[in-house]
Amino acid sequence: MTSRPLALDSLCARLNPWLKERLRTDAEALAKVAVDESGLPPGRAGAVVFPKNTAEVARIAAEASALGIAVVPRGAGTGKSGAAMPQNGELVVDLSQMNRLLALMPHDQYAVVEPGLITGDFHQAVAEVGYFYPPDPGSWESCTLGGNIATNAGGPRAVKYGVTQRYVWGLQIVTMRGDVLRFGRRSIKGVAGLDLTSLLVGSEGTLGIITEATLHIVPAPEAVETAWFSFADLFAASRAGEALFAAGLVPRMMELLDQAALDTVRKVAPFRIPEPAGAALLIEMDGSPARATADLERAAEIILAAGASDSALAKNEKEREAMRRTRRLVSSALKEAYPFKMSDDIAVPRSQMVPLLEQAKAAGASTAHLVCAYGHLGDGNLHMNLLARSAEERQHAGPLRHRIVELAVSLGGTISGEHGLGLTKRELLPLEQTTSVIALQRQIKQVFDPQGLLNPGKVWPDV
Amino acid sequence: MTSRPLALDSLCARLNPWLKERLRTDAEALAKVAVDESGLPPGRAGAVVFPKNTAEVARIAAEASALGIAVVPRGAGTGKSGAAMPQNGELVVDLSQMNRLLALMPHDQYAVVEPGLITGDFHQAVAEVGYFYPPDPGSWESCTLGGNIATNAGGPRAVKYGVTQRYVWGLQIVTMRGDVLRFGRRSIKGVAGLDLTSLLVGSEGTLGIITEATLHIVPAPEAVETAWFSFADLFAASRAGEALFAAGLVPRMMELLDQAALDTVRKVAPFRIPEPAGAALLIEMDGSPARATADLERAAEIILAAGASDSALAKNEKEREAMRRTRRLVSSALKEAYPFKMSDDIAVPRSQMVPLLEQAKAAGASTAHLVCAYGHLGDGNLHMNLLARSAEERQHAGPLRHRIVELAVSLGGTISGEHGLGLTKRELLPLEQTTSVIALQRQIKQVFDPQGLLNPGKVWPDV
Repeated sequence: MTSRPLALDSLCARLNPWLKERLRTDAEALAKVAVDESGLPPGRAGAVVFPKNTAEVARIAAEASALGIAVVPRGAGTGKSGAAMPQNGELVVDLSQMNRLLALMPHDQYAVVEPGLITGDFHQAVAEVGYFYPPDPGSWESCTLGGNIATNAGGPRAVKYGVTQRYVWGLQIVTMRGDVLRFGRRSIKGVAGLDLTSLLVGSEGTLGIITEATLHIVPAPEAVETAWFSFADLFAASRAGEALFAAGLVPRMMELLDQAALDTVRKVAPFRIPEPAGAALLIEMDGSPARATADLERAAEIILAAGASDSALAKNEKEREAMRRTRRLVSSALKEAYPFKMSDDIAVPRSQMVPLLEQAKAAGASTAHLVCAYGHLGDGNLHMNLLARSAEERQHAGPLRHRIVELAVSLGGTISGEHGLGLTKRELLPLEQTTSVIALQRQIKQVFDPQGLLNPGKVWPDV
Repeated sequence: MTSRPLALDSLCARLNPWLKERLRTDAEALAKVAVDESGLPPGRAGAVVFPKNTAEVARIAAEASALGIAVVPRGAGTGKSGAAMPQNGELVVDLSQMNRLLALMPHDQYAVVEPGLITGDFHQAVAEVGYFYPPDPGSWESCTLGGNIATNAGGPRAVKYGVTQRYVWGLQIVTMRGDVLRFGRRSIKGVAGLDLTSLLVGSEGTLGIITEATLHIVPAPEAVETAWFSFADLFAASRAGEALFAAGLVPRMMELLDQAALDTVRKVAPFRIPEPAGAALLIEMDGSPARATADLERAAEIILAAGASDSALAKNEKEREAMRRTRRLVSSALKEAYPFKMSDDIAVPRSQMVPLLEQAKAAGASTAHLVCAYGHLGDGNLHMNLLARSAEERQHAGPLRHRIVELAVSLGGTISGEHGLGLTKRELLPLEQTTSVIALQRQIKQVFDPQGLLNPGKVWPDV
């Protein structure tokens, strides 16, 4: 174990008597919280605590603040931007033990949750009363609701249902000073004062530690229909997607996989991907049984007319889940085949998707880097991956990645559609936002955290 | 005309050479911007300007700031909270001449607008390309999009489609210092940095002057079906509404009118309100023609089974509009009959609606005040009006109004579901939010407006 600074020793001495085994400084515990899913080299935690309630979080924050110790809030560590990674011996506040469903009020269309509740467990609890919590980030089986809120997570269903923000009615947070604050509402509408709830959503742990959330739930659609379409290439797939929207259909899922994604995921895919296929679209429709069926039939007509070479309709929930799971496995399959891949999550206005794909693929070809594109076509939000098998290849791909991000911004898009900036993209923020807008955000950060101790070094570029 | 302070004279001297007749200090112009729809006594404007573009707004703000002159941004003046009313000789920035539709991108599901564009004109422009902008505050024929954004306006369709915030993707604002800042995105998704766009939505002109907005539009539903249901009393109507949601139906409108509202609007109503009726529900369903019809039929079955005494189905667009207009006329009809009425817009979780109505009506009966309730039952957001024919009656009703607002908060609700706090409710904010949360908002206000010159004295209580 590396030697800890005196201040951290003092903090541990103060926390240990009441947190006991829920304060950890052993190498195993520190290593576990030093990484996320960004592919960044591990950071460095000074200690990690596992609070059980809001009062404990408040006490931890106040003690850390008094000693000038920086704090990094953390959920399941499934983020892709490094936002939950400690860098310089910070105290990590791991919220995974605060994982209770505190209230489920289907009639009033909300639930109250603790931040460590696993998103998938919440989906299930809500489904059991006939309701539906739409946000479904790829890691829903292991990520936490607190992390989803902190990053304003998206997911395939966002194309119809919107991202996490739409479902956050209220929050309880702990500030770095140890104050417990409640924002928001439990009624469907409410406009009293500034919307601090929305300000916290997507703030990546820089403003406060989320200790409770009031989440909107909606009646579950009665039926879902799912189909897989194959295409000669991703341009044909993208154009078919456009045709669907032009016809006024709103799918609840429209996921694209390009050839590199299909080739890589094929061997682990529970769904037998048709061959040959240069690209695929995974489409879902929901609503009443008649509506879901009719919409998917109409979608199939449009997509086949737009050039799909093949279509497969899921006949039951098992087949449906095999298709979805095949899509979800792309990220891990690519990671296994290309351990040094660079992932991205740019988004552009939907009409700019084909220009973006064409220019990105061309840029990749001209630099001999393999660009893989998959993800949320319906939202104009693709995961552009630069496939690298070694650290050297990864380093060489850096300029191309920068080029693709610039391209997205020049086409009216954003540097991050859903992963957030954390450590991986904070230096790119000036591509999208002016110095004044970034400075304003820093000033707001200072209002919440005057000492700059909460998740330091994230989101904004160095000044 | 009252004498103007020297600083204001200096400002006018600086603005006059280039704004010319778009700078007004005559009594008529000042009187026009001194009021809104709150029923508050007129405020007092020092001057009013009508900028034509963002650069002009920036120059006006910078000049006012340099001279320490306070500024009140204003749209059509249809607000009900006094937020756009000058109080102490401020400079009113009337944005009604910045009313262009700058871009309409149905394929990318957004439009770019100036703040003075009338909401109804925007509805129409969007409908012409087969799209739909759902927010529909009662004043949609005359209110502006900028005002809708500044107040996070709701409206009857919010029950299915949500309030204004859901549709604001990006904003351009001018700060009091005269800086022009762009927040947000033009892609469907985007999470780069803090969500300053959402922070501005509902900020009631206290943080910046909105000069441009990127608004989300959605494919228009193909068909709408409308029906009017009568009940013995408003409790029966409210219970029928609950039964509809319990059956998993999501109406696009669910408006309640109680007996006082029906009696008052009857003589001006284009729809012949059935008699006798102690309350009514106006229900709309939308979707494909088959879906809208099937859903309304099912709704009618449920509502009649839940105790409606009568139902009327609109057979065409004219009848549909007659029903809607009858609902919209309630506010002005009440105002005419009871010129000193106190309006309110509390909201509660839906399950608390019947307890709220019972307790509010009982409180009214015990104090011999007539309580009228109408509005957005589906959102748990009712306009509770205390009907007063004189200033004296209005003053006597004050304690009852306070009691009803307290009641809403005690039932888990909010002091304002959609009108905002402005001048009318700022002193009530401590009923809902703690001193710390209010202080935090003031600090954020200070980041945007360190001199405290933008829309002073609004939203927050005096300290």
